[in-house]
Amino acid sequence: MAKKQQVQDAKGKLGILIPGLGAVATTVIAGVEAVKKGLSQPTGSLTQTGSIRLGKRTENRSPKIKDFVPLADLNDIVFGGWDVYEDNVYEAARKAGVLDPYLLKAIQPELEALVPMTAAFDKNFVKNLDGTHVKEYDTKYNLALAVMDDIKNFKAQHNCDRIVLVWCGSTEIFHEAADIHDTLAKFEQALKDNDSRIAPSMIYAYAALKLGVPFCNGAPNLTCDIPALVQLAKETHTPIGGKDFKTGQTLMKTILAPGLHARALGVQGWFSTNILGNRDGWVLDDPDNFKTKEVSKLGVLEDIFRPDLNPELYGDLYHKIRINYYPPRGDNKESWDNIDIFGWMGYPMQIKINFLCRDSILAAPIVLDLALFIDLAKRAGMEGVQEWLSFYFKSPQTAPGLRPEHDIFKQLIKLENTLRYMMGEDLITHLGLDYYEEGEA
Amino acid sequence: MAKKQQVQDAKGKLGILIPGLGAVATTVIAGVEAVKKGLSQPTGSLTQTGSIRLGKRTENRSPKIKDFVPLADLNDIVFGGWDVYEDNVYEAARKAGVLDPYLLKAIQPELEALVPMTAAFDKNFVKNLDGTHVKEYDTKYNLALAVMDDIKNFKAQHNCDRIVLVWCGSTEIFHEAADIHDTLAKFEQALKDNDSRIAPSMIYAYAALKLGVPFCNGAPNLTCDIPALVQLAKETHTPIGGKDFKTGQTLMKTILAPGLHARALGVQGWFSTNILGNRDGWVLDDPDNFKTKEVSKLGVLEDIFRPDLNPELYGDLYHKIRINYYPPRGDNKESWDNIDIFGWMGYPMQIKINFLCRDSILAAPIVLDLALFIDLAKRAGMEGVQEWLSFYFKSPQTAPGLRPEHDIFKQLIKLENTLRYMMGEDLITHLGLDYYEEGEA
Amino acid sequence: MAKKQQVQDAKGKLGILIPGLGAVATTVIAGVEAVKKGLSQPTGSLTQTGSIRLGKRTENRSPKIKDFVPLADLNDIVFGGWDVYEDNVYEAARKAGVLDPYLLKAIQPELEALVPMTAAFDKNFVKNLDGTHVKEYDTKYNLALAVMDDIKNFKAQHNCDRIVLVWCGSTEIFHEAADIHDTLAKFEQALKDNDSRIAPSMIYAYAALKLGVPFCNGAPNLTCDIPALVQLAKETHTPIGGKDFKTGQTLMKTILAPGLHARALGVQGWFSTNILGNRDGWVLDDPDNFKTKEVSKLGVLEDIFRPDLNPELYGDLYHKIRINYYPPRGDNKESWDNIDIFGWMGYPMQIKINFLCRDSILAAPIVLDLALFIDLAKRAGMEGVQEWLSFYFKSPQTAPGLRPEHDIFKQLIKLENTLRYMMGEDLITHLGLDYYEEGEA
Amino acid sequence: MAKKQQVQDAKGKLGILIPGLGAVATTVIAGVEAVKKGLSQPTGSLTQTGSIRLGKRTENRSPKIKDFVPLADLNDIVFGGWDVYEDNVYEAARKAGVLDPYLLKAIQPELEALVPMTAAFDKNFVKNLDGTHVKEYDTKYNLALAVMDDIKNFKAQHNCDRIVLVWCGSTEIFHEAADIHDTLAKFEQALKDNDSRIAPSMIYAYAALKLGVPFCNGAPNLTCDIPALVQLAKETHTPIGGKDFKTGQTLMKTILAPGLHARALGVQGWFSTNILGNRDGWVLDDPDNFKTKEVSKLGVLEDIFRPDLNPELYGDLYHKIRINYYPPRGDNKESWDNIDIFGWMGYPMQIKINFLCRDSILAAPIVLDLALFIDLAKRAGMEGVQEWLSFYFKSPQTAPGLRPEHDIFKQLIKLENTLRYMMGEDLITHLGLDYYEEGEA
Ligand SMILES: NC(=O)c1ccc[n+]([C@@H]2O[C@H](COP(=O)([O-])OP(=O)(O)OC[C@H]3O[C@@H](n4cnc5c(N)ncnc54)[C@H](O)[C@@H]3O)[C@@H](O)[C@H]2O)c1
Ligand SMILES: NC(=O)c1ccc[n+]([C@@H]2O[C@H](COP(=O)([O-])OP(=O)(O)OC[C@H]3O[C@@H](n4cnc5c(N)ncnc54)[C@H](O)[C@@H]3O)[C@@H](O)[C@H]2O)c1
Ligand SMILES: NC(=O)c1ccc[n+]([C@@H]2O[C@H](COP(=O)([O-])OP(=O)(O)OC[C@H]3O[C@@H](n4cnc5c(N)ncnc54)[C@H](O)[C@@H]3O)[C@@H](O)[C@H]2O)c1
Ligand SMILES: NC(=O)c1ccc[n+]([C@@H]2O[C@H](COP(=O)([O-])OP(=O)(O)OC[C@H]3O[C@@H](n4cnc5c(N)ncnc54)[C@H](O)[C@@H]3O)[C@@H](O)[C@H]2O)c1
Ligand code: NA
Ligand code: NA
Repeated sequence: MAKKQQVQDAKGKLGILIPGLGAVATTVIAGVEAVKKGLSQPTGSLTQTGSIRLGKRTENRSPKIKDFVPLADLNDIVFGGWDVYEDNVYEAARKAGVLDPYLLKAIQPELEALVPMTAAFDKNFVKNLDGTHVKEYDTKYNLALAVMDDIKNFKAQHNCDRIVLVWCGSTEIFHEAADIHDTLAKFEQALKDNDSRIAPSMIYAYAALKLGVPFCNGAPNLTCDIPALVQLAKETHTPIGGKDFKTGQTLMKTILAPGLHARALGVQGWFSTNILGNRDGWVLDDPDNFKTKEVSKLGVLEDIFRPDLNPELYGDLYHKIRINYYPPRGDNKESWDNIDIFGWMGYPMQIKINFLCRDSILAAPIVLDLALFIDLAKRAGMEGVQEWLSFYFKSPQTAPGLRPEHDIFKQLIKLENTLRYMMGEDLITHLGLDYYEEGEA
Repeated sequence: MAKKQQVQDAKGKLGILIPGLGAVATTVIAGVEAVKKGLSQPTGSLTQTGSIRLGKRTENRSPKIKDFVPLADLNDIVFGGWDVYEDNVYEAARKAGVLDPYLLKAIQPELEALVPMTAAFDKNFVKNLDGTHVKEYDTKYNLALAVMDDIKNFKAQHNCDRIVLVWCGSTEIFHEAADIHDTLAKFEQALKDNDSRIAPSMIYAYAALKLGVPFCNGAPNLTCDIPALVQLAKETHTPIGGKDFKTGQTLMKTILAPGLHARALGVQGWFSTNILGNRDGWVLDDPDNFKTKEVSKLGVLEDIFRPDLNPELYGDLYHKIRINYYPPRGDNKESWDNIDIFGWMGYPMQIKINFLCRDSILAAPIVLDLALFIDLAKRAGMEGVQEWLSFYFKSPQTAPGLRPEHDIFKQLIKLENTLRYMMGEDLITHLGLDYYEEGEA
Repeated sequence: MAKKQQVQDAKGKLGILIPGLGAVATTVIAGVEAVKKGLSQPTGSLTQTGSIRLGKRTENRSPKIKDFVPLADLNDIVFGGWDVYEDNVYEAARKAGVLDPYLLKAIQPELEALVPMTAAFDKNFVKNLDGTHVKEYDTKYNLALAVMDDIKNFKAQHNCDRIVLVWCGSTEIFHEAADIHDTLAKFEQALKDNDSRIAPSMIYAYAALKLGVPFCNGAPNLTCDIPALVQLAKETHTPIGGKDFKTGQTLMKTILAPGLHARALGVQGWFSTNILGNRDGWVLDDPDNFKTKEVSKLGVLEDIFRPDLNPELYGDLYHKIRINYYPPRGDNKESWDNIDIFGWMGYPMQIKINFLCRDSILAAPIVLDLALFIDLAKRAGMEGVQEWLSFYFKSPQTAPGLRPEHDIFKQLIKLENTLRYMMGEDLITHLGLDYYEEGEA
Repeated sequence: MAKKQQVQDAKGKLGILIPGLGAVATTVIAGVEAVKKGLSQPTGSLTQTGSIRLGKRTENRSPKIKDFVPLADLNDIVFGGWDVYEDNVYEAARKAGVLDPYLLKAIQPELEALVPMTAAFDKNFVKNLDGTHVKEYDTKYNLALAVMDDIKNFKAQHNCDRIVLVWCGSTEIFHEAADIHDTLAKFEQALKDNDSRIAPSMIYAYAALKLGVPFCNGAPNLTCDIPALVQLAKETHTPIGGKDFKTGQTLMKTILAPGLHARALGVQGWFSTNILGNRDGWVLDDPDNFKTKEVSKLGVLEDIFRPDLNPELYGDLYHKIRINYYPPRGDNKESWDNIDIFGWMGYPMQIKINFLCRDSILAAPIVLDLALFIDLAKRAGMEGVQEWLSFYFKSPQTAPGLRPEHDIFKQLIKLENTLRYMMGEDLITHLGLDYYEEGEA
């Protein structure tokens, strides 16, 4: 039995602050409120419904995760957030059109009480938005200070013991890390210089980390994924996680691709397309914003298939991704994948996947799990990049020079073994030869 | 670093003997001959194209499996087999219609030289077959002795160092283990009594194990999966593996289901149907034979979803499987799955998978891998049930009382960690916290 | 301009009486009530929303059908019916689960007022039903008289000018016409003899026709599709129509098959399967009842493709139909078709259709249209089989010896040209050479 | 019985000249050669395999079309053509990768003899092509004269009685008709002025029509679809037809949409996407060329659904079309359609179509049929736009001010009734009331 780590208890209130109170954010908030009232179930949330096997198969020990590690209780959660539109969470949830109006009605008072704080925003990063509920500012540095004030005020006002931030804002346009993102010093200078390469999401991340508040990034934009902010996270002993919630089509991809790879089946082409008609789809209809998403989505196959190691199987893989804004569907995204594989003697076969999914329904429990796990990480004394949370991201952030792991099953083992390790349980290897050798004894 | 096991080298010739020289068997044989001649690639075979990661991610050690463990070389393989029809392997491959006639032409002499031995057969177990190339016999015991003679003669004639058997015969009708299958003594008495509950496949298994020849079962019928033959396997220190090659729709199921479970997504229904028009499809058009297959296919979800642990997610799962004989397609099976899942707040979503597969193309490399791995097991001194080969089976045989593992990713880890263990390499846990702690040091 | 037929006006109330107040019937009734209240639209009903082109393309005359021929107004319709269960239409609609509870709530009083009359029933014809709200009877002849009384009482009580019947009862088991179905005299004798080959649906049909009340059959069972009842229909100058509402998968088939035939594309196989979980699906889970449906569904391709005329294209067509009872979906049937076609030089191609349909939503407007059109036919002095209503049926009833027309587009032209003919408008041939010759003049 | 038209016999040889000897052209040529040699069947060609019903259903008269109207015999056809690449038809067919190499081998001599004439080309119209097998020219007028010489020489050299041209060249970039396309006089002046708005395809069309040679346009570009060339066609009494062969996804659309419309089902959205990897796909990867195709494909729904007449059903239809260049598939295009429909009470349903088609296999028989029918039209004394050939086109050319007909079933009736009219047979209206009235007499 390994040595148990030191993990502080989850006592007091946990404030979950969300920049971007759109479809995803309102769905997780409404859901948690509905669960608190006994109206519904938090399906899809590992922290709430998942169990974890401990010890040998024959021990039959599989507690719920929330009974195994000390997580914040749903009743101790307080939500808040920022948006460029001034709709309260009830109104925003109605407009998002994800949850049934009758369900929302039942928690209307709780949701109406949640009014967004004014946003740290810059239209250059999201051209298709025109909200005006934004902070005025002279320098981005002062803008960051204002966000810090928001966080501190919220904490005091709601009597929170701890705070975490999860970015659920719109996808910002594509840009690559520049030298100003290299060190904390350069970054802070750039904030003061009002540098155009500092995205709004970075302002929130900086503000949080400066205060030692854990930060997760649910969108594909560069945010805490720059050396400057990793440095800051370490300095303030704060855990960070990102980026881009893994839902829908990419979720399926990182489930299926490991399976094809497991069986040494070759892949000649993978075509992914989808239709969606929500605000996220509208933002992504702009090519600059789509680029950010595309880069995030394209990466996953490379790591799983390793064409460098398996050139005869994956060396010629043609990977194409399309997103189509299609209003008739609203938030009910639908995706199609066509995978051209080949097997024994090179014979071609085809796999087609059609997923009638609901984007925000898949993303909401991820927000909750990330908030709870990153809060746990903080209490366990972990800091900087939390690779064990890769499970939740399309583009997992890793230590510099370390390949990200995209295979969802390896990600899950990593997550589970991290929890086992925290709690001093044996890691699981699935070797299991002992079942057979014991029989012999 | 763990202690390296004692594994004998793979020197000399390996005879692979196959009861049932139909579509699957002729496809693997023709394929290996084509590969030997440099005409094609053994895609889909883990032993031939797969690699295995060793040590830490940053070590970048990922040798090919065949360079890591001592496997028989393709050039040292000799094939043989039995069938109830007298077609040689060239003719049988042409009739099966799996491989391109032009490819078969290029290896015609090699295939024509492979003439089946007369089968140990009993029409009560496969009503839709009418072959006459079968052994006459008085008692099943003497029939088993005749099969042993076949094995010994083949070994001598082809100067083989070692032999393995892989059952690729038709699916036999459904029956459950009776008392005569309980102990070796009862089983041998029943052989002498010509008991109707001893299936032809059991005759082959008994003959092989008696001679210490490893045996794998690629069909869903009861064969070596009875206490009597497990006992015999241990007595003669012989490894066994089964049952039912995991291909096509079930392969996809054991890839996808772990993914849904990983994300705590609920499943309300899973409907699987397919069309196929080959001889296997024709045999399965008989309800008694279909029953055997259906039982094998239905089991996989139960183990992966564990409705006992997750009743709110999987307690109401309605699982339905249909197979439709449809001649226009021949061996080019096509399958459809519809999965009714639900997520956050119980919202329903649907996943549809359409697989244009080729049954025998997927099964052929499994035959090769099993033959090579079970031969390895024998040389490594392993005996009885080889659970680490679960990766290849729809209904993995396990130690009595032990739940089978159906999750293909856990099966793969089990297989890989077994190989690592054999060779004295560290097992992999995917914990990886050290990458981050090292950075700190 | 052709001579206008004599058609009586649609004045007074029209009673629509429905044997079988299940999913389809309650959906049409609730829908009509919702439309009357301005709550919804009668989409899918040709009589309510369809238009018809008159004259040349350049005349731009396309009145709504209901403005062109004299149909009963929705406000003049009164519904009634029979069922073996005693639920009123509100309760039955709730159980059927087709329409939204909130919509039903809005018309609850109207629906609750509709209480079924006791049914003419015989459990031998539908084994999976166990309702007890049925008429006691000594002979089937007297049972028919009781149904006639029901019709007469309903007409008087609701002050109806005219009555029509549309069978929406469960599918009865398969049986073929016997000699007792040959002539009216034999049939009436068999009624008195309580002959087991007289199905409940025939009792209703006989009762209606005897009273000169038009009758349509929405199920695939033999009902008015026997010589005895055709004879009765002519004697009482009453129009009849049947059988089996054309919805879902068969609807798609009779849309697509004419298209393939139009282009001389060959068809090698057509596989159709579906899942549904409503009461209809439960009844069809019994093989005897499924047989009736299967025969009805299998017929359509034969007529459209005419393998007798096109043996090289359709001579080898393998047509397979499966229905799978699958509770998770309720009334939301889903179907899959796979069509193996071939083109130029025999090259194979595949068409796959996946239809997420709603059975009763597609059937409901058919009930309405049939009721209104057969009432029109009666007022136009038409009697016996109404082939022009083939458009609505899977197995259109025709004059003896006449091939049914299954091509939905020819059926539509037949329907439209019948209406044009009734009203003295030119029939449309789509020749249109005059547009080009005029230009010349 | 109507009066039979005067149609000249099809004696002597028919030369079919094709600008653009790519995938489609080589597939039709190779196919016709294979059929002549008895190696294969002209499936998909209405002229070769289709039959036509004459008279009443009970007459059972359904001759083959080629036995009903006087068409050129396949043995009397001589092929020729132009291309910007110098590959002979055998080489071009091999590169196109549509037909099996073994089939092509069997007709290699015939195909190798077919060497393209130098093309009339202008790279501004197709940026992705770089062929150099092109005519030098000073003015486009002289270029047209050179093409006329090609035609005359071919006719003389191969001793042809008649010639037709079918454009199978690449899709040219999008441009709209300008004033120079308004009258023949302006057009001829522009030819002499070397106007950049005259596309290469127009040069061929002008050359053909000037010589009284019928011309069809298989691509979506403006070609003979301008007033100037319609005028020329009438002056030289020459029939013309266009534009854009109706295959694959659009074919399915004009089959399915009439079916939805027939049943008054509403349509909220129609999303069409496809993948293809041939040279046509590569040309269409250029947005300017895609635009031409998109316009052609988008038009069909408007005409069929008539949102002007049915605003409540089709007023909000969102129609989106995507084409994706995806090399793994070559000519084996695959398409997906998702159709969001709604029925009774506005309830939504979805239809999904997945078509594994082969573009050139579908297009080849259209080339043949068009060539034979337009030659027939010429012999029947028909001139100018041949609307009865709409059946074959995505964007049928019509008389000015006349809505095109896109419903494939109305197009087929138009085609068939035109043939019946030519031969003096009764037009068919599908009224058929006489079958029932006769019975009465
Ligand atoms: N739903 C999913 O499945 C999924 C998956 C992966 C990633 N994501 C990402 O999550 C994010 C949220 O998705 P969504 O569907 O809720 O989108 P949404 O458009 O409904 O919500 C985003 C909200 O962010 C607000 N916003 C934008 N910039 C802001 C700023 N600087 N400060 C404060 N608010 C700001 C917008 O006004 C909007 O209300 C997007 O970036 C999306 O790409 C979503
Ligand atoms: N192809 C796959 O994907 C797949 C997957 C899982 C399991 N399987 C199983 O593998 C087996 C082989 O499949 P296939 O497609 O080659 O079938 P097949 O019908 O082509 O071949 C089976 C052969 O076994 C022979 N046979 C039957 N009983 C025999 C006996 N007692 N002794 C000797 N020969 C006998 C038959 O004559 C036949 O030639 C079947 O049981 C099938 O269910 C196949
Ligand atoms: N929904 C469709 O798309 C569709 C299409 C074609 C045909 N149909 C046919 O229409 C019929 C109705 O379908 P449904 O979905 O409403 O089924 P349902 O099972 O919901 O309703 C049928 C009702 O008929 C009643 N019934 C049975 N026998 C009766 C009798 N002798 N007298 C009075 N009532 C009787 C049953 O109790 C039941 O309530 C079925 O036969 C079905 O096959 C339906
Ligand atoms: N295949 C189908 O299903 C289909 C359907 C509708 C329309 N089309 C159209 O038919 C045309 C041919 O399709 P394809 O698949 O054969 O394409 P392709 O690219 O294989 O062939 C087109 C050929 O035209 C040649 N060409 C281009 N401009 C020319 C010119 N000015 N003179 C002479 N040759 C010229 C090119 O070099 C090429 O060889 C395309 O315009 C395509 O859009 C095809
Ligand atoms: Na797309
Ligand atoms: Na099925």
